[in-house]
Amino acid sequence: MEKEFVKSITAMDKDFAQWYTDVVTKADLVDYSSVRGSMIIRPYGYALWENIRDALDGMIKETGHENVYMPLFIPESLLEKEKDHIAGFAPEVAWVTHGGSEELAERLCVRPTSEVLFCEHYKNIIHSYRDLPKLYNQWANVVRWEKTTRPFLRTLEFLWQEGHTAHETDEDAHEETKRMLDVYATLLEDYLAVPVVKGQKTEKEKFAGAKFTYTVESLMHDGKALQSGTSHHLGDGFAKAFGINYLDREGKLQHVHQTSWGMTTRVIGALIMVHGDDRGLVIPPKVAPTQVMIVPIAQHKEGVLDFAYGLKERLSGAFRTGIDASDKNPGWKFNEYEMKGVPVRLEAGPRDIEKNQVVLVRRDTGEKLIATLDEVEEKLGALLTDIQQNLFDRAKELLEKKTSVAENMEQFKERLESNPGMIKAMWCGKRECEDKIKEETGATSRCIPFEQEKVSDTCVCCGGKAESMVVWAKAY
Amino acid sequence: MEKEFVKSITAMDKDFAQWYTDVVTKADLVDYSSVRGSMIIRPYGYALWENIRDALDGMIKETGHENVYMPLFIPESLLEKEKDHIAGFAPEVAWVTHGGSEELAERLCVRPTSEVLFCEHYKNIIHSYRDLPKLYNQWANVVRWEKTTRPFLRTLEFLWQEGHTAHETDEDAHEETKRMLDVYATLLEDYLAVPVVKGQKTEKEKFAGAKFTYTVESLMHDGKALQSGTSHHLGDGFAKAFGINYLDREGKLQHVHQTSWGMTTRVIGALIMVHGDDRGLVIPPKVAPTQVMIVPIAQHKEGVLDFAYGLKERLSGAFRTGIDASDKNPGWKFNEYEMKGVPVRLEAGPRDIEKNQVVLVRRDTGEKLIATLDEVEEKLGALLTDIQQNLFDRAKELLEKKTSVAENMEQFKERLESNPGMIKAMWCGKRECEDKIKEETGATSRCIPFEQEKVSDTCVCCGGKAESMVVWAKAY
Repeated sequence: MEKEFVKSITAMDKDFAQWYTDVVTKADLVDYSSVRGSMIIRPYGYALWENIRDALDGMIKETGHENVYMPLFIPESLLEKEKDHIAGFAPEVAWVTHGGSEELAERLCVRPTSEVLFCEHYKNIIHSYRDLPKLYNQWANVVRWEKTTRPFLRTLEFLWQEGHTAHETDEDAHEETKRMLDVYATLLEDYLAVPVVKGQKTEKEKFAGAKFTYTVESLMHDGKALQSGTSHHLGDGFAKAFGINYLDREGKLQHVHQTSWGMTTRVIGALIMVHGDDRGLVIPPKVAPTQVMIVPIAQHKEGVLDFAYGLKERLSGAFRTGIDASDKNPGWKFNEYEMKGVPVRLEAGPRDIEKNQVVLVRRDTGEKLIATLDEVEEKLGALLTDIQQNLFDRAKELLEKKTSVAENMEQFKERLESNPGMIKAMWCGKRECEDKIKEETGATSRCIPFEQEKVSDTCVCCGGKAESMVVWAKAY
Repeated sequence: MEKEFVKSITAMDKDFAQWYTDVVTKADLVDYSSVRGSMIIRPYGYALWENIRDALDGMIKETGHENVYMPLFIPESLLEKEKDHIAGFAPEVAWVTHGGSEELAERLCVRPTSEVLFCEHYKNIIHSYRDLPKLYNQWANVVRWEKTTRPFLRTLEFLWQEGHTAHETDEDAHEETKRMLDVYATLLEDYLAVPVVKGQKTEKEKFAGAKFTYTVESLMHDGKALQSGTSHHLGDGFAKAFGINYLDREGKLQHVHQTSWGMTTRVIGALIMVHGDDRGLVIPPKVAPTQVMIVPIAQHKEGVLDFAYGLKERLSGAFRTGIDASDKNPGWKFNEYEMKGVPVRLEAGPRDIEKNQVVLVRRDTGEKLIATLDEVEEKLGALLTDIQQNLFDRAKELLEKKTSVAENMEQFKERLESNPGMIKAMWCGKRECEDKIKEETGATSRCIPFEQEKVSDTCVCCGGKAESMVVWAKAY
């Protein structure tokens, strides 16, 4: 037997950033490479992404969208067509200047997002109201030239889907913007068990070129917020810049109204920082690459391995089931699959076989459960459902606990200090106050929640007339 | 009703290249953009790719491989580590030189293939024979700076999967090289209904950095060959260049032995040029986005649309079923779905409803078939199976018809002229003869088939001692 090292990680409370790095590497989600700011997504991390992607892709198709694929490169002149858009993205794009040994006449940017490519295509294929709506989506890699990077949360290159739609009316585009934000909320809450706050971004924080931006914001264990998906109403700004016109039902030429919306590998970061603990990852059953890991006990004894493999075979139809029959000791294996956040460990040893039973151990609570062989599918199914729900409930409770109300700046600072998390506070709507709050507290406006509350009468910053309640937080 | 244009395309025999361009655009597979040499894959084209990808991904996973994701960018110094590899790829890579406004200290190449990234990662994660084999695959976009491009066949950017594996022994790597070539042959023959010739590439045509390359070659309608998938035995060349070592079962330090293998969106080009005809695309049922298209006849008459939608609902469980209930006339619809290569058209009008039947029309033969309502699933299932088989048989027959034998150069030229296609001819193994054949005939060595025949005693070119039979052809 090889010497076995039990993996250990930094405690969350001691150093949250180091805890995060330990988890993503020791749970074998990612590895680093010599490409600055990029990550290698390892098999376990990619299997998790595949489950998330497939769930989201299913919802995108159910809501009538079709997948397409656009080019990776965008000619500089095309990117410049919509002025706000290029102003927002220019500082963070990578430029291709040479093909082979030839210098290019025009630089190509590696797509940071693909609005302009979709616009050019829509101009080609949209002529009449009969061509609308166009409901397209693409799964792709994009590049943004970030200075400071962290696996999943902020990387030079990341994987995502980007939806791009064109509609007859502003209202239709608005409906779509809301519909896709709801899809994101469903993915986060029902699949990743991550509760979100839905709302609108302020003017300062909206997407470059959009009329307005909707967002789902989640809250990490350390009290920082994470923007987890955005849906933009683009209005007709891009349509005007690109000349995307259609003949309406009265035969009049009109601009289309557009939306775009995206969700990225970043949500894996949310999943880790919402559910993880000092023993490592905790993955919600619905997206877990392995839902049940079988660990044979005293596997050298006669019949144990046959029994364990029989169970694996039997359970694989209903659950994503793994087995570790390596010659490492059970303690090492327990530790390993806890680190990897497998929702349920199934132990089976000689005494269990004798009693016609197995032991089920929950990752989220550590609770043990005996299941006789004829009830194992039923108990496992119920357990996975319960774990999924418990993870959500726990996260929801944390979000509520870490959400404070502030009526003035003194309270704002005190609460952010004593209970790091989200601050609900009224805002006058002025950019100056938003900037000042960031400068003085480090917190940014996360969103203007759809569910408004009147937590006080005046702007938390200037004391002027309050326009809306904003959720503020330090953010990733 | 809008004015309806029936789409028409150039005849194959008149101008095959123009026929191809007409098909890919008029069947709505692709569109062009302002990005030179790149294509937009439209919903119908992408749905076809998704079906191909899912079938291949399933086989890749069944053979024990795991998906990962590697960075898009490769630092120049990393690409240069294996000398043959960089020599082969340097002329066709795109270079990123700037990030935002900053000039990079080291240029980054946009991956043309990812061997060097996998090698760097393998060096990190492989230490002992217990870590082997590593069987990884990735689905990604790659870029090769091509001068002349055509949708699917040769584009600046394309989508593919690339497998990269590491093994204890040369034999294990060899087994893997063969296994994955067989997977490609299965995908092409059993799913795309495209018959292939399996064999080994000559030294001249092998992958840059490989010990040897296996290939599956298919033959298009115009007599040109298309390399449709390759599997490379990399030997230990990369392992030596990158220092990928492991402790073997005797505790001795060894280099790993590697393979890589790839299949791309190019196979869509093969499918088009093998099965298409003068009415457009013909898609094999197993990968068709729509297997059955319902066209209601006299749909303004009472009950027709209800009947048609009822059928759609009923058939959707078993078949990928579409319905076109637009106000275009049936003739336009027949033409449209023939252009799109939908395997079966289902017509249902008032007289059919009266008789409790529908009409099924095959895309491949044009044959019509009556099915009563209680046998429609059964007949449709059998029909789709039959179409799949017929397409393969037809293509196989064409491949055989367009394959000639040549014993000397005169015969070689005459046969390539009179019956454009594959030429089986003996070869001495010398590069000079291979070059001369290309120079004089335009045909290149496609492969040294695994199934060897002795078609003559001497090299077709120099008359020297024959080493093996080679299949030659002009190629895409």
